[in-house]
Order: sequence, then structure tokens, then C-alpha cells
Amino acid sequence: MQTQVRYYQEPKVNKPVMVCGLPGIGSVAWVAANHLEKELKAELFAEVFSPIFSPKVWLTDDGVVKLMKGEFHFWHNDSGGADLLVFTANEQPYSPEGQYELADVVLDLAQKFDVTKVVTMGGMATDKFIEDPKVYVGGTDVELVKEMEGYGAVKLAGGAITGTNGLIFGLAKPRKIPAICLLAETPGYLSLDANAAKAALQIFSKLLNIPVDLALLEKQAKENVEAVQRAKDLSRGGYPHEARKGGERELPYVS
Amino acid sequence: MQTQVRYYQEPKVNKPVMVCGLPGIGSVAWVAANHLEKELKAELFAEVFSPIFSPKVWLTDDGVVKLMKGEFHFWHNDSGGADLLVFTANEQPYSPEGQYELADVVLDLAQKFDVTKVVTMGGMATDKFIEDPKVYVGGTDVELVKEMEGYGAVKLAGGAITGTNGLIFGLAKPRKIPAICLLAETPGYLSLDANAAKAALQIFSKLLNIPVDLALLEKQAKENVEAVQRAKDLSRGGYPHEARKGGERELPYVS
Amino acid sequence: MQTQVRYYQEPKVNKPVMVCGLPGIGSVAWVAANHLEKELKAELFAEVFSPIFSPKVWLTDDGVVKLMKGEFHFWHNDSGGADLLVFTANEQPYSPEGQYELADVVLDLAQKFDVTKVVTMGGMATDKFIEDPKVYVGGTDVELVKEMEGYGAVKLAGGAITGTNGLIFGLAKPRKIPAICLLAETPGYLSLDANAAKAALQIFSKLLNIPVDLALLEKQAKENVEAVQRAKDLSRGGYPHEARKGGERELPYVS
Amino acid sequence: MQTQVRYYQEPKVNKPVMVCGLPGIGSVAWVAANHLEKELKAELFAEVFSPIFSPKVWLTDDGVVKLMKGEFHFWHNDSGGADLLVFTANEQPYSPEGQYELADVVLDLAQKFDVTKVVTMGGMATDKFIEDPKVYVGGTDVELVKEMEGYGAVKLAGGAITGTNGLIFGLAKPRKIPAICLLAETPGYLSLDANAAKAALQIFSKLLNIPVDLALLEKQAKENVEAVQRAKDLSRGGYPHEARKGGERELPYVS
Repeated sequence: MQTQVRYYQEPKVNKPVMVCGLPGIGSVAWVAANHLEKELKAELFAEVFSPIFSPKVWLTDDGVVKLMKGEFHFWHNDSGGADLLVFTANEQPYSPEGQYELADVVLDLAQKFDVTKVVTMGGMATDKFIEDPKVYVGGTDVELVKEMEGYGAVKLAGGAITGTNGLIFGLAKPRKIPAICLLAETPGYLSLDANAAKAALQIFSKLLNIPVDLALLEKQAKENVEAVQRAKDLSRGGYPHEARKGGERELPYVS
Repeated sequence: MQTQVRYYQEPKVNKPVMVCGLPGIGSVAWVAANHLEKELKAELFAEVFSPIFSPKVWLTDDGVVKLMKGEFHFWHNDSGGADLLVFTANEQPYSPEGQYELADVVLDLAQKFDVTKVVTMGGMATDKFIEDPKVYVGGTDVELVKEMEGYGAVKLAGGAITGTNGLIFGLAKPRKIPAICLLAETPGYLSLDANAAKAALQIFSKLLNIPVDLALLEKQAKENVEAVQRAKDLSRGGYPHEARKGGERELPYVS
Repeated sequence: MQTQVRYYQEPKVNKPVMVCGLPGIGSVAWVAANHLEKELKAELFAEVFSPIFSPKVWLTDDGVVKLMKGEFHFWHNDSGGADLLVFTANEQPYSPEGQYELADVVLDLAQKFDVTKVVTMGGMATDKFIEDPKVYVGGTDVELVKEMEGYGAVKLAGGAITGTNGLIFGLAKPRKIPAICLLAETPGYLSLDANAAKAALQIFSKLLNIPVDLALLEKQAKENVEAVQRAKDLSRGGYPHEARKGGERELPYVS
Repeated sequence: MQTQVRYYQEPKVNKPVMVCGLPGIGSVAWVAANHLEKELKAELFAEVFSPIFSPKVWLTDDGVVKLMKGEFHFWHNDSGGADLLVFTANEQPYSPEGQYELADVVLDLAQKFDVTKVVTMGGMATDKFIEDPKVYVGGTDVELVKEMEGYGAVKLAGGAITGTNGLIFGLAKPRKIPAICLLAETPGYLSLDANAAKAALQIFSKLLNIPVDLALLEKQAKENVEAVQRAKDLSRGGYPHEARKGGERELPYVS
């Protein structure tokens, strides 16, 4: 089996921006990209199937089988701003070679649709919960980084970004696609950090001047805060109930 | 060395159903597919040799060498119902890529023979012995799942199925081959769960309206129950003898 | 880099027998094949270089670099019996795929020279030192096994042989090359078991009616016995000196 | 993604010598090659991008993304001696196959520019700090080893060299490129051993009759000695401050 991209339609998009969000630390990028896709009612137009994903399948509530995969959605910006292409996947490829391959598949599609910019996201582990997480930014050039600093992001001066979210970002450079990577602070022990995802989307929203309703993320983030608080209380003698419910109910089929 | 399928004959089968059983939890699928193949006196017609199998060989009681491999048997249904193709293998491929490759090899053959349906099986670990195990079912579409519920299977609502038995099932979908996966409850600590295999075959038998003599499986299952009972007695001061004999004697060459 | 076989000469051999000995348990096969090659003054005619070997190089006493590799030697049998091709290598390939590939390379060369038989060897771990080790045999057909039983080998009824020595043997079968595998008992804790190698060569020698001087192996084997004895004495209060010297001095460059 | 070499210019060099330094024990080779490249103000002319490097990217102090990569620099020797090509990389490839592939990429380029000699370096772990480390040498032939002994290197009689620095050296031989590998003694617990790098460069400098200013390395080496001393004092009740600073500040982006 070879990696294949199956198209369900060929969207007409005008020099769109591509946003990518694969699971990683705190699933920050995945939560953010999924929220975006759902809030904007972006439309599925292509899927990636590949042996670079884990050898497993998952089932819907109806008992219907789904393959591990990547998904491309598109969104038309009726207010005249940039159209969007959103890429998400159930998981990051298990092997280094697979991560490079997926990054190439995504960037091939980005070039096919003449994207003007690629935005990837991720989490930066801080080991402690921060209610107002900072969002770090790296870019393919200095001007882009400076522009993002203007929107409130903090320059990521040095360090490494591992995994596919980093590779898509980095491999955009030799293809001459302007790209940025937004890394929101996340404690590292939350499996789905809505708070960090919200912070990343706020910056993203300013960059593209696309208003994104963040209410649902805020609700989840609030539940996270309460869960963290309950866990702290517990360690002092409190009582936990449904501590993980808020975060987990949005990702029922990913294992 | 490339993966190769060697044909020993080209069976004439009329829109057959393919059943697949590779070793996995409790070897449920492997035991079931082997029982089926032996009870129906299905005929070997092709073998798969490949470096996706472990780098080892095994020997018969006569000291003759055999390669690790997959086997295809066929069976003509003289009562007018569906013919069968049965696929088994000594083991699941050791690498994720190998599992995807084997699933593709099996489905290529399925398409070559115009199968009308693919049935894979597996075990669902319950951590405790259940005399009357439930059989869960997932399908490539909702109707198939509902049909199977009619035969006594329980809808698998959510969750993941790992390994080749899951991949053959899942990859059938984009090929438009209707497929189901039957997962029988198994304690997880039995290496060859005849009881679970019997439960899966009972459902399978209803689906295809093929009577399968399950006497041998029942005998093994009974020995399993007794072995489990002896083990329990032992932990209370009893005496174990040949506790694993019943289950293991059917699989002497697989290491 | 691709696997490559470099020929230094094209030996004229008349339907030769190929003997293969790669390192494994007790290095039985490697010690036996090397002894054979040295005693018969077999001539190097080809080498295998490949990334399936470990990413390292080794140095001679002169400080000259050598690659990890496989070697083919040939020997003309002036007494009219079978000519020999001897294959050895510094190590077994590190990956399963590499082991299959090397087995194919060896068998391709075997077919190119029309070998009439392939003989591979190996060790069978017994966990205890046996002065007169049994030699087990498996074959590509029943007659070959029976013939070997006539020479004193014991039929290997069931079980698995792992690694490249087993694969060369097993993959000979679909190529219709008669093949046997000789497994000599070895304690498992000796790194170079000359005693087991001697036992395997005695059987091999009878099969081909080639007298092989085993004096050097006997000397090493005797040193092994003494070393084992010293180790036993030590555990009862004795004094060890140079316990491993006998066995190790024949393999100074393999790491 | 395939491995690719991107050329930024095609330097005119006259039968140059190629020096290679990838990270390894004590990063001896990497520190030495980087020092050489900086002191000689060698010019970047080509880069290697490949999925054989880790799936990650790194960021400069400006927040600009860089891929993991190999770099080729060249240097014109105005005093009439040998021109130089210097190869370095952020890391050694993570897989054995990747290490063979990179060695081939480097030697392909070496042949393209008709190099007369390849010099690789490395560290030899001694487990203790030695102020005046010995430099061992292996070569593709005896004469080269003897020549290097004349410059103060010690013949490496036996043993193995693992990794890409060893492979480039060893794979030069079948290509008929004279090659040597210099291994400087290093304690093994220093991450960047300037002292060992200095020792290797002193020998290298004599071989090519290229004066290299080693002042900076000497400064770092001195700081290392002091750091080791402080660590010793500490274990006797002393006080450590910035013990690792000297060594680490030269390699801020490699993770």
C-alpha cells in the first residue's frame, strides 16, 4: 500500500492560508485545528490514507469502521479575507520517515492550491498550569516573526520543534512557502488542552483577521481549570468527579 | 526478496465469502479459521511468502523445513450457499508496514476472486474467563452491523481494532468490499481460546447459513474451562496437571 | 548504497556443495565454516558489501580498515568428490529484512554456480556443557533427513530455527535446491564453541566424504573443556586464568 | 522526501582534501571540523537535506527555522598546499541505513571534486580525563598509517569504529580514495571535548602542512580542565559554577 490522497472535490480557493494541527503535547494543535474546522463549518475535500499511520482501525458509535487518516477541509472567507485549508490527522506517523513523508504530502497539496502561508501549531510543555499561556512563534523569515510579535506572540529564540507539526513548518522553507509555527504553553499533563488551543487561535485570528468564536474552547478550558483545581483539592483531601470528562469528550475515537 | 503469492491451483469459486484468521489475542481468529478450514476440508490453493514474516523457519515432525507464510484455502458449498476462501497465517507481520502490506495482498486476492464479503475475527480481552462470551461486531456500513446484530452479535460502538485482522477489515472499505469484524470476548491469558473461537464461528455460521461442526472446539473449550478451574483450585491448594495441554496441542509448529 | 557482490575471480567449479556459516549461538556455524575454509585452503572469490550489515568498520593489526561483509571461498576437490563453496560473514544482518536479503544473495550465487546442495549450520542451546554434543538435522525433504540420520545426525522433529542460517536453509526449498541444516548442541554461554563446530563438521565430512583435519578444533575444544572446568573449580574456590583465551583468539576483529 | 544535495555554488578546487566531522563521542570530530571551518573562514557551498535526519527543526536566535542537515564548506589554500572541503552535520542519521546513505552522499561529492584524500575523525573513550590525549589512526592502506605515525599518531591495531565517521572512512576504500580516521582520546563524559579536538587537529595540521590557529580550542580546553577540576573539588566539598558553560556555548542549536 502506498500513501494516497483521495479527493472528494476540487475546491476553488483563492490563494488560501493552510492551517495544520496534528496531535502532540496537550494535543494543542489538534484541538485548535478541529475547533477552527467545526466553528467555520469547513468542508472535507480530501483524505490521506497511508501505512505511515498505525496499523489499526477505529469504529464510530454506529459500529462502522474508519481508517487512520489525515483530512483536508476548506473554508471560503466571504468577508474577502484569506480562504483557509485545514489539515488534521488522527495521529502523527509512528516513524521518522513517515513524518517526513506526511509533511511532504501536506506541502504538495499546499503548493497545488497556491497557499500563501502555512501555519502549524503545537504545545510547549511548562510542567505547570498557566491560565494565560504565552504563545511562542518561529517563522521561515525574520519579518514574519516580527509581524507575529506584533499580534502578541513571543519570539522563539533557539530550541527545537520535534514531530510533524515542526517538519511541515520547516520543510515549507525550501519550497519558498512563508510559514510560521505557534507554540502555546501547556502544562504537559493535560491530554487535550483547550486553554492552550484557545491562546494559539487568538493569535492566529489576529494574523488572518478572521473572527473565530472561541466560546466552546473557553468552556472546555474552564472545565480544565476546574478539573486541575479539583485534582489539587483532592491531593489536599478533596473529591474528584469527572475530572477528565470536559477534555476527553471531543476526541472519542482516537486511541 | 519480495512478497510473493504462489498459486498451486486456480479454484473456480462463485462470488465467495472470504474469512480471515491471523493469530492475535487468545488466537481467537486463528483457531476459528483453522477449525473452519479443517472441518470443511477446505483445499489449499495459494501461499504467501514474504520478508514481512519473522526471519525464521520451522520444522515438521519429519524434520522437513517450512517457511513462515500465509495460506489460502477454498471450499465449495454444495448446498448452493456461498463458497468460501479462508486465509490464515503463522503470525502477524512484525512491522506496521508489513501488516498493511499483508492486508493489501489478502484484499488483492479477494478482489481477484470477486468475493462478496470479507469476514475477519479477533479477540476482545476481558481479563476474566466468560463461559458464554459475547461477540462484538463492526462493519463497513450500518446495515451490515444491523444484520449481524440480528444473528446475536453486539454492536461495537467506538474503540479501535489493532493489527492485521483489523486492517484487512478496514481496508476493504475503500475497495467497496462489504466487510465485518467479529470480536469474541476472551480472558486474555489463554493462548488458544477455543471457547471464544466457537462463539465467533456460531455467529459466522448464522450469517452464511453454513452448518459447521463445532464438536472439536467444544471439547477443547471444555478442557480450557477445566484447566482454568484447576488453576483456580491450585491457588486454593489444588493440583494442576496438563493445564495447558488442551489448548496447545493444535498449534505445535508455531513459535 | 545497495547490496553488492564483488567478484575477484569466477571460479570453475563442478556442481559444488555450498556450506554456510554465520555467527549465531556459540558461533557454531561461523567457527565450523571458518575452520573448513582454512583447513582446505579455500580461495576467496567474492565479497558481499551491504547496508544490511552494522554501520561500523573494523581494523586489522596493521591499522587498515575493513568493511563488515560476507565472503565466498571456493575449494576444488582433487579426489573427485564435490567441490565446495563456503559462505561466511562477520555478523548476521541487524534487521529481519536484511536477513531475508542476505539469504537471497547467497542463494542467487548458489544457483549461479549450480550447487547441488546447501548445508547451513547452527547451535542448539542446551544450557549445560556436553562433551559429545548431538547434531540435529532438518532438511528440505524427508529422504535428505533420513540420509543424514544414517551419518549419525538426529532428526529435528518440530521447533523453529531463527536467523539467517535458518533462512538460507528454508528459502532453498522453493528454489528446488536440496538443503540441510545441522544444529549442534552448545551450552549457550560459550561465545565460540569449537566442540560443537567439530561435531557438526564430523557429520558434514561424512555426508560429502571429504576428510577434514579437525585437530585445531579439537585443541580449542579441549581448552574450552578446561576453561569450563576451571570456572567450575573457581565456583568451588579454584583459580581462573585465561579462561576465555582459547575460544576468543580466533576471532579478534569481529565486534 | 528523498535525500537531496543543494548546491549554492560550484567551487573551483584543485584536488582537495576532504575533512569530515559529525557529532559522536565527545563531539570530537564535530568540534574539530567546525573549528577548522571557522578559523579558515571556509565558505558554505552545498547542503544535504534528508529524512535520514531526525524529524525535527531548530530555531535561530531570531526565531527563524532551520532544518537538520549536513553542510559542505570549501577553502582555498593560497599558500599552494591542498584546498579543503569540510563536511559537518547537526547529527548522525538515526538509522543504520541512514548512516550508510549519508556516507555515500559524502563520498559521491568527494569523487565529484576529485578529492585526493578523506580524513574523518572521532573520539576514543578512555573513561578518564587526559590532558595530553593520544590520537589513534587507521587508514585505507599500510603506508598511510605509517605516514601518520610519523606525525605523532598511534596506529590503531584492531578494534571497531562505529557510526558515520567510521563508514565514510571505510567506504572510501572500495572507491579507491585514500582515507584516514583520527581518533583522539576523550573521557566520554564531556559533551564537547575541545582538548581532544585540538589534539586531532594538530595531527591533521601536520599531515596537510596547514597552520591552524588553535587558540580558541585551547581556551575551551582550558575551561574544560577547570570544569573537571571544579567537579573533582566539588566531590571533595568544593563549589561548582558554570561547569558546563565553556563546552556548551559553541553548540547552541543542536539538540
